[in-house]
Formats: sequence, C-alpha cells, structure tokens
Amino acid sequence: MADEVLPDWLIRSAENAPEREALVYGELRLTFGELRRRAERMARRMATAGITVGTRVALLAHNSADYALIVHALPRLGAILIPLNTRLTAEELRWQLTDVRATVLIGDAAHSETITALGRALPPLRLLSLDDGHDEASMPSIATLPEADVTLRTEIDLAATQAIIYTSGTTGQPKGALITYGMHWWNAVGSALNMRLRDDDCWLACLPFYHIGGLSILLRSAIYSMRIVVLPPPFDASAINAAIVAERVSIISVVTVMLQRMLTALDACAATYPPLLRCVLLGGGPAPLPLLQDCARRNIPVTQTYGLTESCSQATTLAPGEALQRLGSAGRPLAAVRLRIARAGGGEAAAHETGEIQLAGPTITPGYDGRPEATARAFHDGWFATGDLGYRDAAGYLYVLDRRVDLIVSGGENVYPAEIEAALLSHPAVAEVGVCGVADAQWGQAPVAFARLHAGATATEDDLLVFARERLARYKVPKAVYFVSELPCTASGKLLRRELPGLLPPASPE
Amino acid sequence: MADEVLPDWLIRSAENAPEREALVYGELRLTFGELRRRAERMARRMATAGITVGTRVALLAHNSADYALIVHALPRLGAILIPLNTRLTAEELRWQLTDVRATVLIGDAAHSETITALGRALPPLRLLSLDDGHDEASMPSIATLPEADVTLRTEIDLAATQAIIYTSGTTGQPKGALITYGMHWWNAVGSALNMRLRDDDCWLACLPFYHIGGLSILLRSAIYSMRIVVLPPPFDASAINAAIVAERVSIISVVTVMLQRMLTALDACAATYPPLLRCVLLGGGPAPLPLLQDCARRNIPVTQTYGLTESCSQATTLAPGEALQRLGSAGRPLAAVRLRIARAGGGEAAAHETGEIQLAGPTITPGYDGRPEATARAFHDGWFATGDLGYRDAAGYLYVLDRRVDLIVSGGENVYPAEIEAALLSHPAVAEVGVCGVADAQWGQAPVAFARLHAGATATEDDLLVFARERLARYKVPKAVYFVSELPCTASGKLLRRELPGLLPPASPE
Repeated sequence: MADEVLPDWLIRSAENAPEREALVYGELRLTFGELRRRAERMARRMATAGITVGTRVALLAHNSADYALIVHALPRLGAILIPLNTRLTAEELRWQLTDVRATVLIGDAAHSETITALGRALPPLRLLSLDDGHDEASMPSIATLPEADVTLRTEIDLAATQAIIYTSGTTGQPKGALITYGMHWWNAVGSALNMRLRDDDCWLACLPFYHIGGLSILLRSAIYSMRIVVLPPPFDASAINAAIVAERVSIISVVTVMLQRMLTALDACAATYPPLLRCVLLGGGPAPLPLLQDCARRNIPVTQTYGLTESCSQATTLAPGEALQRLGSAGRPLAAVRLRIARAGGGEAAAHETGEIQLAGPTITPGYDGRPEATARAFHDGWFATGDLGYRDAAGYLYVLDRRVDLIVSGGENVYPAEIEAALLSHPAVAEVGVCGVADAQWGQAPVAFARLHAGATATEDDLLVFARERLARYKVPKAVYFVSELPCTASGKLLRRELPGLLPPASPE
Repeated sequence: MADEVLPDWLIRSAENAPEREALVYGELRLTFGELRRRAERMARRMATAGITVGTRVALLAHNSADYALIVHALPRLGAILIPLNTRLTAEELRWQLTDVRATVLIGDAAHSETITALGRALPPLRLLSLDDGHDEASMPSIATLPEADVTLRTEIDLAATQAIIYTSGTTGQPKGALITYGMHWWNAVGSALNMRLRDDDCWLACLPFYHIGGLSILLRSAIYSMRIVVLPPPFDASAINAAIVAERVSIISVVTVMLQRMLTALDACAATYPPLLRCVLLGGGPAPLPLLQDCARRNIPVTQTYGLTESCSQATTLAPGEALQRLGSAGRPLAAVRLRIARAGGGEAAAHETGEIQLAGPTITPGYDGRPEATARAFHDGWFATGDLGYRDAAGYLYVLDRRVDLIVSGGENVYPAEIEAALLSHPAVAEVGVCGVADAQWGQAPVAFARLHAGATATEDDLLVFARERLARYKVPKAVYFVSELPCTASGKLLRRELPGLLPPASPE
C-alpha cells in the first residue's frame, strides 16, 4: 500500500460525470467536464510562468471559482499550494512567504496592493494576478499567459504534499503543516462513511479556502463528484440562507459565529431550512450549548465536529441524527482516525477522565515543513498531541473541554497568545506581557493583553493597540490592554496564562 | 501510508451504531452490537480450538449467520479464512486443503459427511462443527467449546491476508488468490463512491460467501455499518423477491441466471420491485443484451459490473442510472482501480480496439499463495493480466467481449476447460481430450468434451461422464462427450480450444 497512486480525482469525476454540475459561483456554473478543461488551461498557463514539480505557489485570494481552478491545476503540475490567510498583515505574510520558500505568489484584485508590496519586499518572488487590468509588467494576469505544451499529470500520489498551511503552536511561532493528498483522501472517505453520500448532495463552501475546513471541500468535491456552491466574502448570512434554498444545499460547514448569524437572518424573515439540508457541520471550537439547543428546537441538523489543520479538518464528527442525543459532543473518530485521551502522567485516560486529545491515522499530518524538531515534539509514539483537552464518555464520544489551554478561538480563527505577546514585547516600553481570551458576545472569544512597562517608560493603551495593528492581523489585535505591575508566574518565572483572567477588572464594561 | 492500520471495522460499527440492525437471517436479527458480541464469543471459542495468528481455517458451509460470525471472528485472532466451494467433490477439496496447508476445517451439518471423509483423509486436520449433534469426539461443535481468555485484536492491518480463495487459470491448476483486508477496504470505498451510500441501504447476499462477490458483502457491511440480508441456498427466486420487498432491500448482487429466474418469478405473480431497490449489481460474466433490455423496460435498475476474485469483486461498474444509456457496458473503473486494454503485440489499445483487460491498484491481489512463478506470470509491469478480452469506448466505458478465451462461465461459476481435461485424461482409455463451452439456455454456458481414445481402447460417453462425476464438481461435468479421431492443434501440438466448437455436430439436439 506504500506510495499508493490514484487516478487524478478531477479527471475521474470529469470522465464519470462530465455533465454533472461541479461548482456554482455567482452566475457561473461549471460541470465537471468544464471544470477539468479550465483547470487544465490554468495548469498550462501556470507552466508558462515556470510553475513545475515542487514549485511552492502561494495564493492570496478570496474564495472564488478561480481559487478552485488553481487548487485543481496544481496537482496536474505536481506543484504545492501555500494558501495564505487574507487577514494577515503584510509583515506576517512576508515572514510566511520567506519561511516556506514560495517562489510564486498569485493574488486576486482585492489583494493587489499587499501583493505589490510583498513583491517589492521579496524581489525573487514571481507575482501573478488572477484578474486583469493590473500592472502587466510586474504582475501579469494569468489569463494573458499562453498555454504551455507540457504533459499534465493524470495520477495522484497519496504521499505527496498537496498544501502547506501555517498554524501556530503554544510557542506562537507559526509553522507550516504538511497536507498530503492522502490526508484529503482518507478524510473524504471517513466523512462519507460517517455522513453517507447521496447523489444529490451539494456542499456549500463559505469557510475560507485558506483554512483546511474550506480547502478540504474543494478536494472532496473532486473525490465524490459532488456539486459545491462557493460564496465569496464578506460573510453574508442572508446570502447563505438564500443559497441553501436556491441551490438545494444538503451540507454546509460553519463555525459558531456564522451559524448564529444565519439563525438571526432566518428569524428576520421567519424562514426555516428545507429538509434537503441534512447536515450543518459545526467546527472551529467548542459550540455553546444554548446554540445547539436552539438548533435542536428548530430541527436544524447540526453535527458537531472536532478537527485541526494537522488532521485535515474533521477528526471526530457526530453522525447526522445523533446531534440531539449527544448534545455538546464532537462525536467519534472518522473511520481511519484513531483517538486516545492521554493522561498527563502517561497512559490512557478512563471514560469521563479529562486528558489531552491525541490522534493517529492517515488523515494526520506527517509533520511541519522544514521543522524536524517541532515535528518530533508534536508526536508521542506516533500519536499527534493536539494540546486540546477533552474526555470520552463510556460510548467513546468525544467531548472537547477546551482547545489547547493557550488557544483563543475568535470567530473560528485560531489566535495564539504567544504570537500577540511577541508582537507587543517588541514595543520599547513593554517589559512583560501576557495575553488570554475573554468571552465575547460576537466572536465567542477575543484576546486581551496584560502589560508591565519598563521602569520609567510610558505608553497608553492606544499606543500599544496602534502598535499591535501594524504587526498583527485584525482578529489578533487585543480588544483591551490592561497595565499591571506584576504578571502571574510559576516559580521558574514562566507566565501562568490561565491565571490572567483573574486580573480582569471585576466590573468590566463588557 | 505503508502498512496502514485501521480500527477493526465491526468494532467501529458496533460502537458507532450499536442498535442498528446489521444482519438478517431467517428469523434471526442481529444488531451491530450483538453481531460484535457474538463474533467475539466465536473468536474466543476458536482460540480454544487452537486457532491463532496465521492459522489457516477452511470453512465448508452454506451461507448463514454463523458463516458471517466466523468471517468477523477470524480478524480478531489474526487467522486466515479459506472459504471452500461447497460444490466441489471431496477429492477437489482434499487437494485444496492440502495445497493451502489448512490446519482447521469448520463445516455445517449439510456437509458433515464430506467433512468426516476429509478428516479421515487428512488426519492432522482439526474438524469443528458449526452445528450440534455430531460426533463430538472427532468433530466437536464450536458452540460447546469454552471461551478462551485471549486478547482479541482491535485493529486491522490492511496489508494482512483476510482470505485465500482458489481460482483456476488457463492451466487448469487451481491456485489460491491472496485477498487482503486492504483489497476489501478499497473496493468498499470505491463501490460507495460509485453507487453512493445511503443510511437506509440494505444489501441482499444471495451469492455464496465462498465466492468473492458474496464474501465482500460481509466485509462491506462492517465497513459501511450497513444492514445485510443473508439467504441460504438453495437459490429460490420467489424467496429473494419476497425478501426484497419485506426487508426494504436497496442493493442486491446477482449473476445472470439468478436475475432471469427472479424475473420469471416476478412475472408469475405480476409483481414489480419497489423503488427502494436502487441497484441490481449484475456480475459473473457478460450479460445477454435481451435481459438488460427487458430490465430496462421494467425499470429495474440493473448495474453491470466486471470483476474477478483477484480484483476482490467489482473492478469496473456502471453507475446506477447509467444502465440504460450504456446498455451492455460493465462501466468504468472504481475510484482506486486503474484499467488498461493491452494490445497483444504490446502497448495500449485505442478506443474501440479489442485487447486484454489489465488492472492495477489497491483492490488487486498481491498474488497467489505460495506460487511466486504463477504470480510473476499474472503481472505485466505491475498490471494484473486478467486474460479477459474487451474494449473501451471513447468515454472510457468497458465492454467485456469474452471472459478469457478458455473460460466457461456456467450459472455464475467459473469452469476451466483445462481442469476438466486433466480429469478426463486420467481415464485409462483417453489419449487426448479438449473441452469448450457451448451456449446453454439455463446456465448461459456449459462445458462439452471432445475425446480421442487410445488405439484399441473402448469407452462409452456414459463411462466418461460417470468417471468425471467422481472427480469434478457437478457444474464442471461436461454435458456431452464427443469422440473424435483428431483434435485441432497448433503446429507445436498445443490444443486449439477455440476451434473445438467447429467440431460440434451441425444438428446438435440442443
């Protein structure tokens, strides 16, 4: 079974079902036959731009049909996708592009300024535009490139890297998780075995494609020969609700804040979802119980899932129909996933005993790009240590108590306190800083910072927030900075982040 | 991905859906939870009988719930199943048991005489009965054995051998094809991607479990958490039709002769199938076009498939719904299967050009047990050479023209001329013999023999038929023996089997 090679998924779908609708994006409707043809043209144009086996192609763009074409074109060339989070600052992107050794950066018109700036900062980087009308000299539009007469690949090596997606650990240092084709394949198969696969299934993709939860929908579409509906940002709950009805959507992946807004929009027009919508896959952090209960009352088939970038999205998922009996559970592992709850002192936890969630199996990343030490640290005897806490009930259903202690999940985005602390520490007035999450009505959680200034130094909250905004994506900027004379530390001087919430003013204006 | 290990399929289904119905057999209805518990008790009793890792356990029995329990118990012990064809003679079985080095033979009451005889012929063979009331000394009932306190396996190694199933080649020498767990896994996944997987699916198993087409249903049931209905022989078209309605069957695997009888029985009571029956998977040889057209007229969703023991059942299959547009085609390869049509002179055939059907991928056998030369001969550059002839149309749909030139498919059973010839040649009067298939109204094809006697020897047709019946399973016994003075041969003296039909009397009574 080593190095299993499969026929290219999109080619298979195009051959099996050439006339079946594959992708809906606004007015554009592509059949699998047309999606394949366009992806092949895209691949030939990319080949003209020098993209070939092993080229690391960064992509900074909103969800669109073109995004899907690039995702489907890259395997035909054996090139690797680096999907960039559109919410990062130019400085964060520059660091990531350098770290991953990307040689090509493709972007859409919405990000042309950032891309031009990145091109200036990283001169060897080749820039390409998904749209027309830009500076054709420094950033030619892909559409204008001739199609190279190259032999496109027709098979997929499951061991090969499809993408590298950056994610941070408790250290705050982002690192690129290797996502192989095999991880997508086994995840798609496990998901189909769990939620079944109907001929009339249609998956709505409103999660960004730069996150694994969105990207995996594109691959799944090709593996299943399944129609997907792509909605571009900004997130528009009413547009999503309308698309669910109009496009006969059966499955949608969302995070809590999205679902809450969708329900609000639904109430505004006293509407309900059609029964064809058979699975609302809810991921991106623990879901509030009142939301799940509300959905249960409305007969909305919410299916909680737990997953990470490193597990290629879903690792455990409830089966549709279990949502009501297992309210609050993230379900059981997908078919090829093995799950254990590790005791801090070693050994496996008993039922209902809390410990660290660890995962193994072919949907788990082989490691972090170019970081053998981080990879070694992440695995314990072949098990991937998620850092997240949870327990299993007697029937083996997972309950996630908390994402890794230090992780703040804000509107579905992972926010790493250490990364924010590092940014604030670079301010000359700051001697010491600690960041933790606080409950936020809109985003679930939001970061706040506690700073101790150097003796004699001065800085206002605004000074530090402005400083943070220049260095951090907006969703990472603390919603408040509290000045303190001392931070809670261990005897050895290590910051005790979990004690930070105790420092919050008791009558916080929130 | 090498040596991928998955959680045991039945355990997963029992944990995911303990109360879901797993198996229906007559009055017996087992949930996945109960099926798992019974399989575990069966495994512990088998352990008491000395069955352990690597033990080769032959099973001579009709389809039953107990058959399923043994199939599910063996992986828990790491033992290997040798499913024996119940239609073979004692002599054929003795040869196979010796060749495969089976140390345990389990049988049901219907085969107790044969089993006792085999036990006498092969004294080291340990006999076990699935039923009670036999000679408890020489053939104890499994049910009476105590349950051993052994640790049962909870994982499945995809590279491990699940079964060894005997199949003959053009040489007539049967050989044991290795069937791995991975072959079942990838086949089940490919089948689900092709025909989709519904929560209310139920597969009716009326093909014998000693054939790959029947056996694979048992494994698929555990992989999918899908209900199956098991019907014991004899084949009863009315009982099958009744079960399809009563048990809400959605998928059934059949061969041509079964389907023909089912239609006749349907007509006898002017009935139709309910729309829940969404796939009649028709395999076991080329289907007659009139039958397909008849089914199309009746709106019966027949889906042709092409497969072999060595491809773990389906290799190519039409998608449900394609049957009418692609009448006569066996469809396209399943997701993980690669197919090519090889020119006799080398290279790949063009569309509509006939050649040998060759297969590759993880559903293809790694080879024949203990026969490295036969294994080497069967593979060309990693492609398994089926010996069957066919072509692909421009859209890649496979049309099987003929099973391997020498193969006779009679009532869904493969009959190998060389095997019959070898049996007849051992008759002292026979100098030379050739066997070919002729059309048969009931069985599709049936074998006939052409014999040249030694100078001075005499034998009647009856003499040879009686001789054949003692040595060959009933379905292999020629329906006629013609005496000839000369057989068609190549210049080098090799029998030209394809010229044998020309020797048939022009006004054959058939």
